[in-house]
Amino acid sequence: MSIRIGIYGYGNLGRGVESAIRQNPDMELKAVFTRRDPAALKIRTENVPVVSAADVDQWTDKIDVMILCGGSATDLPVQTPALAEKFTLINSFDTHAKIPEHFAAVDAAAKKGGKVAMISLGWDPGMFSLNRMIASVVLTEGKNYTFWGRGVSQGHSDAIRRIEGVIDARQYTVPVPEAVQKVRNGENPELGTRDMHTRECYVVAAEGADKAKIEQEIKTMPNYFADYDTTVHFISAEEMKEKHSGLPHGGFVIRSGVTGFEKEHKQVIEYSLKLDSNPEFTACVLVAYARAACRMAAEGQTGCKTVFDVAPAYLSAMDGAELRAHLL
Amino acid sequence: MSIRIGIYGYGNLGRGVESAIRQNPDMELKAVFTRRDPAALKIRTENVPVVSAADVDQWTDKIDVMILCGGSATDLPVQTPALAEKFTLINSFDTHAKIPEHFAAVDAAAKKGGKVAMISLGWDPGMFSLNRMIASVVLTEGKNYTFWGRGVSQGHSDAIRRIEGVIDARQYTVPVPEAVQKVRNGENPELGTRDMHTRECYVVAAEGADKAKIEQEIKTMPNYFADYDTTVHFISAEEMKEKHSGLPHGGFVIRSGVTGFEKEHKQVIEYSLKLDSNPEFTACVLVAYARAACRMAAEGQTGCKTVFDVAPAYLSAMDGAELRAHLL
Repeated sequence: MSIRIGIYGYGNLGRGVESAIRQNPDMELKAVFTRRDPAALKIRTENVPVVSAADVDQWTDKIDVMILCGGSATDLPVQTPALAEKFTLINSFDTHAKIPEHFAAVDAAAKKGGKVAMISLGWDPGMFSLNRMIASVVLTEGKNYTFWGRGVSQGHSDAIRRIEGVIDARQYTVPVPEAVQKVRNGENPELGTRDMHTRECYVVAAEGADKAKIEQEIKTMPNYFADYDTTVHFISAEEMKEKHSGLPHGGFVIRSGVTGFEKEHKQVIEYSLKLDSNPEFTACVLVAYARAACRMAAEGQTGCKTVFDVAPAYLSAMDGAELRAHLL
Repeated sequence: MSIRIGIYGYGNLGRGVESAIRQNPDMELKAVFTRRDPAALKIRTENVPVVSAADVDQWTDKIDVMILCGGSATDLPVQTPALAEKFTLINSFDTHAKIPEHFAAVDAAAKKGGKVAMISLGWDPGMFSLNRMIASVVLTEGKNYTFWGRGVSQGHSDAIRRIEGVIDARQYTVPVPEAVQKVRNGENPELGTRDMHTRECYVVAAEGADKAKIEQEIKTMPNYFADYDTTVHFISAEEMKEKHSGLPHGGFVIRSGVTGFEKEHKQVIEYSLKLDSNPEFTACVLVAYARAACRMAAEGQTGCKTVFDVAPAYLSAMDGAELRAHLL
């Protein structure tokens, strides 16, 4: 019997989950939930209902795992605890600093309802966290480095779009190649914010807008750009559409450590991602963990979980003997 | 209270475990077991007894986890099932084709004794398996590629040493850069044995030995070299000692897949290792999994486990809240 999935929120990530479900034959999309008018929302999968979020309670028996696809700023902190009492669910909550608080709220709700809830799935947090953590326990004396990019940061792109005179913007986060090379060499450098990443901005300005002023406003924006070497390129709307409509991303987590009685041996572990589509990759991680959540719930586990709590075998449709024979 | 570790077998790997224990403050080396004369074996750690393997049964109450450090060819297949009834234990059994058989034997013994036994820990099998497997469930439509090296293959070095007229030999396995590049680009090439790796041999020949004959014997050796492009360099014993006394290794596991409704997006996951010391890195993995084995045993779990069965949180000395705050 297939695992019945609900998608809660239908933006880039929700569409990515819809697509990922088609690549997992043991999964079935059961319904898409939206806060918009369901009649106005057209999804890609035929014969699957679009349901008003207001009616979600009628679906508790028809959904095995609800995949929450809202944003981390305002949607997930509210929706996740509210739904965790009623559904086995997973999300991609990615505000690192607020994870402990979010975990506590979701854990309480999930335990109250006797459900499993998994949070902060995706690639960072998610796959990067898993690799940071395992690399840290293997090489106990060492340093972790995380580089992001080259890829589109949606938060930074949005920040530029809020500037007066800006019609559209795309911001690429770019790792500094020299810094990456030093880390890969096992040199364990001390790296500040500016040493690790640069920020490349592509901006479509309104006709007659003051480009010098826009550039200045971007480069001095606190938190987002002031601490980085930032370049700004003004381009046409056509060029934006042609060259910058994708959502590529990626990055690397590198752990560089030492072993041996005299700590004489350098050892470097690197995990890297090169993604044509950031939301589709995040969606693929979510769908694999949906399988794990479903199984852990079936075993009677309850409460909030993260990637750290999931034995890898739960992620796969193969059984233990197949995994050992083919992938160990 | 620290985790009391026994080391069973004291070669390169055993010494690596001894060294790794010093980098893990919650671990304590309790004894080293050897089939040699204990009086003749000197270890690096003071005030730790070297015990005859014949007396191992007297230590069942004094060892929390036994780390088996013998070879996969003849030691581990016998020792692991024999000891799994009496000790929580782990090993680095790495004969991929025989893992299912080894698992069955160890599982039966561990269950009979009510113990936990973990097998095939290290980097391949081990960390590489974990990454192959997780990458495969995330990108369900794709291909796995495993490259080893540049690094010393001890099995291939030994094979050369058995040739008449050879005094010493070191064999490096080297990934073919063009093949790696194609895979990293997401081209999903079909690659045969010869396309992926070359073999570089450094040989010290006896005085008066027929070097042309040795080279010919190496290059045509079935299984080991015949299917590869192999180069042979004759060097002096001094040069061997100076330039080739280390045991570096490494490699990469790359999963290249596609996502999207039209499978229009390439996604590439890569896990790579660059190791100055192969046995010390393997030892570090063993020690982290010793912690997990100890905890899973304390929870009352029994039977044989692999990397696929261990929730990552079990590996770390940190508790769940610390892990979420610092590494998620």
